Amino acid sequence: MNKRKIINDPVHGFITIDHPLIFKVLAHPIYQRLRRIHQMALAALVYPGAVHSRFHHALGAYHLMGEALKELRSKGVAITDEEVLASKLAILLHDVGHGPYSHALEHVLVSGVHHEQLSLLIMQQMNSEMDGALDLAIQIFTNKHEKRFLYQLLSGQLDVDRMDYLTRDSFFTGVIEGSIGYDRIIKMLTVHNGELMVEEKGIYSIEKFLVARRLMYWQVYLHKTVLVAEKMLVNILKRAKEIGANSPSEFLNMFLNAEMLKHSPAQLLFEFCQLDDNDVMSAVKQWQMHEDKVLSLLCGMLFNRNLLKIKMQTTPFEDADVANKKQTIQSLLQLTDEEANYFVFDGEATNTTYDVHEEKINILFKDDAVKDISQVDNALIQQSISSKVKKYYLCYWK
Amino acid sequence: MNKRKIINDPVHGFITIDHPLIFKVLAHPIYQRLRRIHQMALAALVYPGAVHSRFHHALGAYHLMGEALKELRSKGVAITDEEVLASKLAILLHDVGHGPYSHALEHVLVSGVHHEQLSLLIMQQMNSEMDGALDLAIQIFTNKHEKRFLYQLLSGQLDVDRMDYLTRDSFFTGVIEGSIGYDRIIKMLTVHNGELMVEEKGIYSIEKFLVARRLMYWQVYLHKTVLVAEKMLVNILKRAKEIGANSPSEFLNMFLNAEMLKHSPAQLLFEFCQLDDNDVMSAVKQWQMHEDKVLSLLCGMLFNRNLLKIKMQTTPFEDADVANKKQTIQSLLQLTDEEANYFVFDGEATNTTYDVHEEKINILFKDDAVKDISQVDNALIQQSISSKVKKYYLCYWK
Amino acid sequence: MNKRKIINDPVHGFITIDHPLIFKVLAHPIYQRLRRIHQMALAALVYPGAVHSRFHHALGAYHLMGEALKELRSKGVAITDEEVLASKLAILLHDVGHGPYSHALEHVLVSGVHHEQLSLLIMQQMNSEMDGALDLAIQIFTNKHEKRFLYQLLSGQLDVDRMDYLTRDSFFTGVIEGSIGYDRIIKMLTVHNGELMVEEKGIYSIEKFLVARRLMYWQVYLHKTVLVAEKMLVNILKRAKEIGANSPSEFLNMFLNAEMLKHSPAQLLFEFCQLDDNDVMSAVKQWQMHEDKVLSLLCGMLFNRNLLKIKMQTTPFEDADVANKKQTIQSLLQLTDEEANYFVFDGEATNTTYDVHEEKINILFKDDAVKDISQVDNALIQQSISSKVKKYYLCYWK
Amino acid sequence: MNKRKIINDPVHGFITIDHPLIFKVLAHPIYQRLRRIHQMALAALVYPGAVHSRFHHALGAYHLMGEALKELRSKGVAITDEEVLASKLAILLHDVGHGPYSHALEHVLVSGVHHEQLSLLIMQQMNSEMDGALDLAIQIFTNKHEKRFLYQLLSGQLDVDRMDYLTRDSFFTGVIEGSIGYDRIIKMLTVHNGELMVEEKGIYSIEKFLVARRLMYWQVYLHKTVLVAEKMLVNILKRAKEIGANSPSEFLNMFLNAEMLKHSPAQLLFEFCQLDDNDVMSAVKQWQMHEDKVLSLLCGMLFNRNLLKIKMQTTPFEDADVANKKQTIQSLLQLTDEEANYFVFDGEATNTTYDVHEEKINILFKDDAVKDISQVDNALIQQSISSKVKKYYLCYWK
Repeated sequence: MNKRKIINDPVHGFITIDHPLIFKVLAHPIYQRLRRIHQMALAALVYPGAVHSRFHHALGAYHLMGEALKELRSKGVAITDEEVLASKLAILLHDVGHGPYSHALEHVLVSGVHHEQLSLLIMQQMNSEMDGALDLAIQIFTNKHEKRFLYQLLSGQLDVDRMDYLTRDSFFTGVIEGSIGYDRIIKMLTVHNGELMVEEKGIYSIEKFLVARRLMYWQVYLHKTVLVAEKMLVNILKRAKEIGANSPSEFLNMFLNAEMLKHSPAQLLFEFCQLDDNDVMSAVKQWQMHEDKVLSLLCGMLFNRNLLKIKMQTTPFEDADVANKKQTIQSLLQLTDEEANYFVFDGEATNTTYDVHEEKINILFKDDAVKDISQVDNALIQQSISSKVKKYYLCYWK
Repeated sequence: MNKRKIINDPVHGFITIDHPLIFKVLAHPIYQRLRRIHQMALAALVYPGAVHSRFHHALGAYHLMGEALKELRSKGVAITDEEVLASKLAILLHDVGHGPYSHALEHVLVSGVHHEQLSLLIMQQMNSEMDGALDLAIQIFTNKHEKRFLYQLLSGQLDVDRMDYLTRDSFFTGVIEGSIGYDRIIKMLTVHNGELMVEEKGIYSIEKFLVARRLMYWQVYLHKTVLVAEKMLVNILKRAKEIGANSPSEFLNMFLNAEMLKHSPAQLLFEFCQLDDNDVMSAVKQWQMHEDKVLSLLCGMLFNRNLLKIKMQTTPFEDADVANKKQTIQSLLQLTDEEANYFVFDGEATNTTYDVHEEKINILFKDDAVKDISQVDNALIQQSISSKVKKYYLCYWK
Repeated sequence: MNKRKIINDPVHGFITIDHPLIFKVLAHPIYQRLRRIHQMALAALVYPGAVHSRFHHALGAYHLMGEALKELRSKGVAITDEEVLASKLAILLHDVGHGPYSHALEHVLVSGVHHEQLSLLIMQQMNSEMDGALDLAIQIFTNKHEKRFLYQLLSGQLDVDRMDYLTRDSFFTGVIEGSIGYDRIIKMLTVHNGELMVEEKGIYSIEKFLVARRLMYWQVYLHKTVLVAEKMLVNILKRAKEIGANSPSEFLNMFLNAEMLKHSPAQLLFEFCQLDDNDVMSAVKQWQMHEDKVLSLLCGMLFNRNLLKIKMQTTPFEDADVANKKQTIQSLLQLTDEEANYFVFDGEATNTTYDVHEEKINILFKDDAVKDISQVDNALIQQSISSKVKKYYLCYWK
Repeated sequence: MNKRKIINDPVHGFITIDHPLIFKVLAHPIYQRLRRIHQMALAALVYPGAVHSRFHHALGAYHLMGEALKELRSKGVAITDEEVLASKLAILLHDVGHGPYSHALEHVLVSGVHHEQLSLLIMQQMNSEMDGALDLAIQIFTNKHEKRFLYQLLSGQLDVDRMDYLTRDSFFTGVIEGSIGYDRIIKMLTVHNGELMVEEKGIYSIEKFLVARRLMYWQVYLHKTVLVAEKMLVNILKRAKEIGANSPSEFLNMFLNAEMLKHSPAQLLFEFCQLDDNDVMSAVKQWQMHEDKVLSLLCGMLFNRNLLKIKMQTTPFEDADVANKKQTIQSLLQLTDEEANYFVFDGEATNTTYDVHEEKINILFKDDAVKDISQVDNALIQQSISSKVKKYYLCYWK
């Protein structure tokens, strides 16, 4: 009998680990690093419970992948044991490329490289360490495996990634209205013509899922206080780069520095994998005492949760209003025009409830007809609400 | 110090009873009767947990009324202690006029009288027993009290009745996607110009509430198996009336019988208050052995959950199809044309997600603007989905 | 692919039915009868949510049986598909012999016959209807199957029956402290030398299970108000028997009547299977107007939850005190000495936290040693607390 | 109307902040620091969800204090508004003196000073900043206020601190058997002769509370993997001190260094308040590459969760066994005898279910008798199980 381990998860109950390869991946230092990266970046400044890690989320998604495959098999869908294992490995690794405070800092630290590309690079490196044991997992991850529905479970409109993070983020924030009833959705999944679909009687659960996601976006992910905190963190790293500030972490320094360009891709990947949230927060802490006024002010404010003011509205802000606020801070703190931009700035936050062009959640009817969720009779999710919702924000010194 | 009692409620935790009048109402035999009336009629045939009573629901709504008033008071809304007590009494009694298997049988047993009128009659009778102690409660219940928001909490688009039954029905059926986050909604309530409103940041919770309600309607209340069972029960009582069948309950007989017309209203009200679900189910049980073929067949089927077949679709059924099915059963069981109607029948079930003309959920913005939930920017709940959704059903002998 | 049905259960989530025999048993009228028998008899008079049915409990235990067998198989215990099915059938049917308000009325209605014997009789009858399809299930139920651990899962110290009813009763009463963490216990089950055991690291979960059971007994099952209500119901049926009262249910009459003795066992079994809680409650309702003073008084009180007073203490009541209270009621209501016993009576309620002689919960240590839970080092559950706890109650007219 | 804020807490629902002083304390940088200190130190290495902060726990305890006081007031206990506010402030600040990875590192970083003393020092400093606004809070915290029950709620056998951390730790670890039913306990609290007591009918809840606490100790707080990880962290800091290793955090260096002794107490308190978990984990990360073999090995192992082996048993380990294991590692890694102690060491973990001498949970009976929980009839919690449970552990190189 194989070694077998059970992990307590307040969200899903118990998560079972029962294959040597899964153990091996979990134990890998690069994987353990995910323990030190918050799933929700700075959201804990508003929702104090939201301190769960990417490691925990990946475990949860791995669990749901197992549940979904079990359900599909019980409905007669052919899935081999190798495919089960590979799908679980793929979901376990899907987020391994995330850096510290990921969504916020992705563009500052490694501009131009998406975390999914990094995940793939890391998977490939692990694969060579493991003599090709991840071949099939990588095939599925890159959508090159013939059974497309496995890819869709991993990265589609109803993938287990989304199901886990919405459930988990709702759980840890305490925003229970964001819960999505993932267990019912999983029971409703089916495969038709090789594509992942939802049975007819799952329609209302899917509607509910989309509305819960909408709620989570506006109430949590794009909560104005979370937004301003993340923008301030971005500004901090931008400023540090600009003035060549040194952090206590040599690896973080690498990414703030032109030296970086001289390293080989393999070296850079290694260095990237040394970074976690601690490096960033330790830098912020130390830079509170930096001699650069802009940097020290921003760091002191963020570190002690003494944030910039933020307003959000459905129309753009007046240029005059923005200019006016900049003027005030400039003369108050004796800043250059450019420096003032670190304290007063506006922008847009957008979210789409259901994009009828890009998203495809297919409903399978009893008569084998297939319709997109936005096309079923009396759909709640219609053309008319499928456009991007845009909100404008303005951050400024109080 | 007053007598004080705590009741365990799996839905709300603990419910506190702390006023002599509340104790008096709860202990009244007419009130205790609600223990024997299922909140969800025959839904337990599909959702085995859904066996909770109207008594339990009324207690829950009473609890939420207390919570809502506490919240409003803490926001500075003026509410006297007398109004608090009266509002609690009113919600406790709002459903006291429900008869056995209420929604299903209302029209068969006491045709032409709505349960709210019966609730009022009973409240008035109790009030005279209690020397006018319910005066203010009745005033609020009939919307004659000047503080309109108290009536709206009792019977409006966001009343505590609805909040409790959606929450409770979701809990006992296990359809967790139907949960509405009532505690957040209550935190978002406010009063503006004497009207009940929702604060701006509660918009997504309200959307969620409406979508959860929509889901509960189609997935639970109008579930096709629940529907056919309730229709069969209606047919059973209609047939019993038609052929003058006798039940083991003399009170039920009264309502199935022309004698009824000779009784005074006061007598009838007394007799109505003797009825509960047991009377109906005992009759069904006994009528399984009735000599009338139609009655005994229907009773045997319902009692043993061997129901008629039902189909539901978004377009009306073909007349020929219905006629055809009737023909079959008629010759199979040797029935008259009229008798066949008890086994083959069609109809419509309708539900509206949000009726922009009738429903008014007002959102209060920070700048004191007031908008209906369907009028806010980027509303999910729009004109376009505010029309009635109609589904057609056909029940027939398998 | 087999027909497959999913039932929503608020306690366990989703329960899957996927075998024709299971469908057949569930659809049987004798089985459907369990829908009309409350799992917790009159406990709803104290805990309004506790109205769940024996049908629902049996479904839940069936679900847990499936989970436990899946877990054991994954640990390498050999269990055939036939044994899985038979164990599930056995647990589904284990309570089918329960009569109305079972524990309370067992001794009044069918004195001398335990409900487990009735369950067996009914299983045997169903088995002959089903051409022996229940053979193996009956073998397991009667502990004649060689794999003793299957019987232990069905009816042992840690059986799925107990796990479900403690969990379910805790859920529906809202007494959350009574929850037992059944999922962890199931994960800790194992089989050693053919016997069901618990892995070493499950010790604290088992302690917790026993303490939760203790709490449920004293706080819920033997709650003094529940106790007095059940004693009153017993007294009602005793009195009805004594004076030969007629109920609206002819089947109930059979069991209250000497005629019964003339019926054959097969006839009696059939008749017994017609009874449910409604028959009893309809009788109580009608007997409120019976000419016998004792009967009508008791029925009126129980029906309207206007119960006798009850005191509970750890020492027996003084004879003089009891006699005194009897005297009072006798003269007040003009009763004979014997009639007074219906209104004033005392007795004992007992419960044992863990009986070291009868109960055997075996812990399997890593070194293959086996110890009873009361024998492990630093056991909470020790000899000293394994004696029966006795409480004395006195019920009387207020 | 006061400013009012609602914080989402997945454990208690919503936490309301509604007094300027509470806002002021929460916003203080020293208080915000608690966001960066894990409530459960390294437990997340076993329970991945256990990443909640001391900040979150303090908020939760503050909420429960409010609930408990509301309950006591509703029972007629005299408590002024000032006392309510002061009690809330005191509980909010009770843990403010915790350092990084508190329980583990308390003795290494500030040997000889208990975190409660530090909390008091910090409260006094804040109090002088706030012109004495914390006077009454400090009086209660130091048990100098005449109403002793307020101190008992803060720091007694049934204090809100314990109720929150057991509930919260159970919630975030997912060890649901550790949940304690705090809401029922709070409903059962009362005050008699100025002392906090539990009403008679709360006995079983208290038993359950003590058993849940016992379970949490052995299953979570003293889980062997958690234990070894925390011991390794202690060893890391000891070694760093010993060899004078430099960390990236100057404040941490202060506490690892003899320089510290030259600082004034006020300076030291300030410096202590700069420390959080990040400083320690960043040091561990960097020291993986330290030239000292002992330090770098330990850091590498802890950082990548590649821990020492640990055995736990109820009897002490044989000296020969320990010596033997030391020998092995010494020759393998070429270590001195003293260095080997960093990799092979034994010790004791102890916990007492209920110490009858020190703990006093008083039960108030209806007849005004008062008994300790271990003295009530048929007590589960008895003399015999009140002795310390001792377990021996041995950590070693695998």
